[in-house]
Amino acid sequence: MSDSLFVGVDLGGTSIKVGLCNEEGDLLRTYEGPTQASDGADAVLSNIAAYVRELVPPGTEEWEKVVGVGIGIAGFLNIPEGIINFSPNLPFKDVPAKFIMEEKLGKPVKINNDANVAALGEAWGGAGRGVQNCVCYTLGTGVGGGVVLNDRLIEGASGMAGELGHITIVPDLEAIQCGCGRMGCLETVSSATGIIRMAKDAVARGDKTSLALVEGELTAKHVIDAAKEGDEVAVRIVSRAAFYLGKSMAVVALVVNPQRFILGGGVSKAGEYLFSQIREVFRKLTPANATEGVEIVAAELGNNAGVVGAAGLFLRA
Amino acid sequence: MSDSLFVGVDLGGTSIKVGLCNEEGDLLRTYEGPTQASDGADAVLSNIAAYVRELVPPGTEEWEKVVGVGIGIAGFLNIPEGIINFSPNLPFKDVPAKFIMEEKLGKPVKINNDANVAALGEAWGGAGRGVQNCVCYTLGTGVGGGVVLNDRLIEGASGMAGELGHITIVPDLEAIQCGCGRMGCLETVSSATGIIRMAKDAVARGDKTSLALVEGELTAKHVIDAAKEGDEVAVRIVSRAAFYLGKSMAVVALVVNPQRFILGGGVSKAGEYLFSQIREVFRKLTPANATEGVEIVAAELGNNAGVVGAAGLFLRA
Repeated sequence: MSDSLFVGVDLGGTSIKVGLCNEEGDLLRTYEGPTQASDGADAVLSNIAAYVRELVPPGTEEWEKVVGVGIGIAGFLNIPEGIINFSPNLPFKDVPAKFIMEEKLGKPVKINNDANVAALGEAWGGAGRGVQNCVCYTLGTGVGGGVVLNDRLIEGASGMAGELGHITIVPDLEAIQCGCGRMGCLETVSSATGIIRMAKDAVARGDKTSLALVEGELTAKHVIDAAKEGDEVAVRIVSRAAFYLGKSMAVVALVVNPQRFILGGGVSKAGEYLFSQIREVFRKLTPANATEGVEIVAAELGNNAGVVGAAGLFLRA
Repeated sequence: MSDSLFVGVDLGGTSIKVGLCNEEGDLLRTYEGPTQASDGADAVLSNIAAYVRELVPPGTEEWEKVVGVGIGIAGFLNIPEGIINFSPNLPFKDVPAKFIMEEKLGKPVKINNDANVAALGEAWGGAGRGVQNCVCYTLGTGVGGGVVLNDRLIEGASGMAGELGHITIVPDLEAIQCGCGRMGCLETVSSATGIIRMAKDAVARGDKTSLALVEGELTAKHVIDAAKEGDEVAVRIVSRAAFYLGKSMAVVALVVNPQRFILGGGVSKAGEYLFSQIREVFRKLTPANATEGVEIVAAELGNNAGVVGAAGLFLRA
């Protein structure tokens, strides 16, 4: 099967992206269309099928080479059974998506959660290419994660492996409540939302900072840019985000000892300014044997990580 | 190969235990003899070969069924190459043990570190039997660990996966220095050594405790027994050991989400008194989805975990 092909589906609340990958994890082409979530679950699944057929027309030689279709979705999933129990932006409630899509497409289908799938995409066809053990962080609205060991996505007993954003990392006395209801989660400080929250707190209490002058909605990019320009309040906010990321990696390194940490998502666009701080904390808090040769690098696939990883579910999960 | 057999070797500083396992991880029999470490590396390796031949005589039908010989050793190892770089209690310095033993025995040989191997033994043939994802803690002089996912031992990029004893877990202001030179490692509070240290500190500063009356060398068992009898100082020491164990498991649960945590080693003999405290902390500090169905149980194989896991290296590593 040296020329097998794999289809990946990134199912979002407003659009669906589908992509075709070869066995090496190269993304050959993509197709995108609207989700039309308001039309209900069946309409959404029919759209997926239509876009997949648009990507690779059934009956063609290419279609014959397609081993399966992987789908990445945000929400609570029963991964082995392929059931979408709940999805925050989609009209799904206990929908047997795997079964329905296999009926529609006549190909094997797998589903998995979007953060896992994005991690697998980066590990397989992105910044982890050639490396067997990677841990990925996605620094966006929250902090997502995914663990790939011996080239395989780790799901865990109940699909909670790689939920790195909810590691309790902020010391009790400094902790605030996370959206999940618990205190001191990594994503309270290292997500875009966490960075914006710290900046708004600073502005609200009257700290002397250029962030007070920002017009319109304050973003994580405003804070990072201000930090790079030396605004002391912003510097501390970004350092705090970097510190807890590095500290969490120090723990992860002693559990699974990855060769590479891969950071994606909006906050990771801060680049070397952020990465150099994370690396410094990581090296300081981790035994030397577990830092040796370990790299902390930026994700490469951007918005395509989801389709590539979903396609990879048939080789790597 | 439905009746394949596997030999495991637990290479210790004073004795060498060898054992024969079937594919299910049942330990069929063992043989034990002295290490004779003072005679040098080659004598030790010759002893291993002699004990293996005693266990399964070459030329027999059983010998033909032996797929390979796995060896568990404390120390710094180059696992892929099978080289023992250094071992604290053995006369090994950069010894190509895999190569030498394959020459002596005419069977494939694998080496791995003793904590990983004990974890694999418990996961395969002990308290993790039938469960695909386990994390093991050995609470002895230090705190050892091992991670088994999808039935396979996780080694990590440089063999540091599962080094759970060196997770930084004690908050900065309460942390003391670990034997590894870093501050606040789990094993400073949750190993037998840590428990004894806290007890000695209490006695030395004159805390009112029955531990002050212990004659001879204070042990972790003294502290645990005193705690069970309600000695308040001892109660707090054991609670502290339990708290940080549970807290570390809360992190591990979000990295690899195991179905079962397995606790072995001397301190785990404290039994339900200790386990109930660990479970309470774990459930409090972990998101519900990652605790659902997760068990925290005692190891079952005792001193045989090493030979069983070493034998398992040929199926599970």
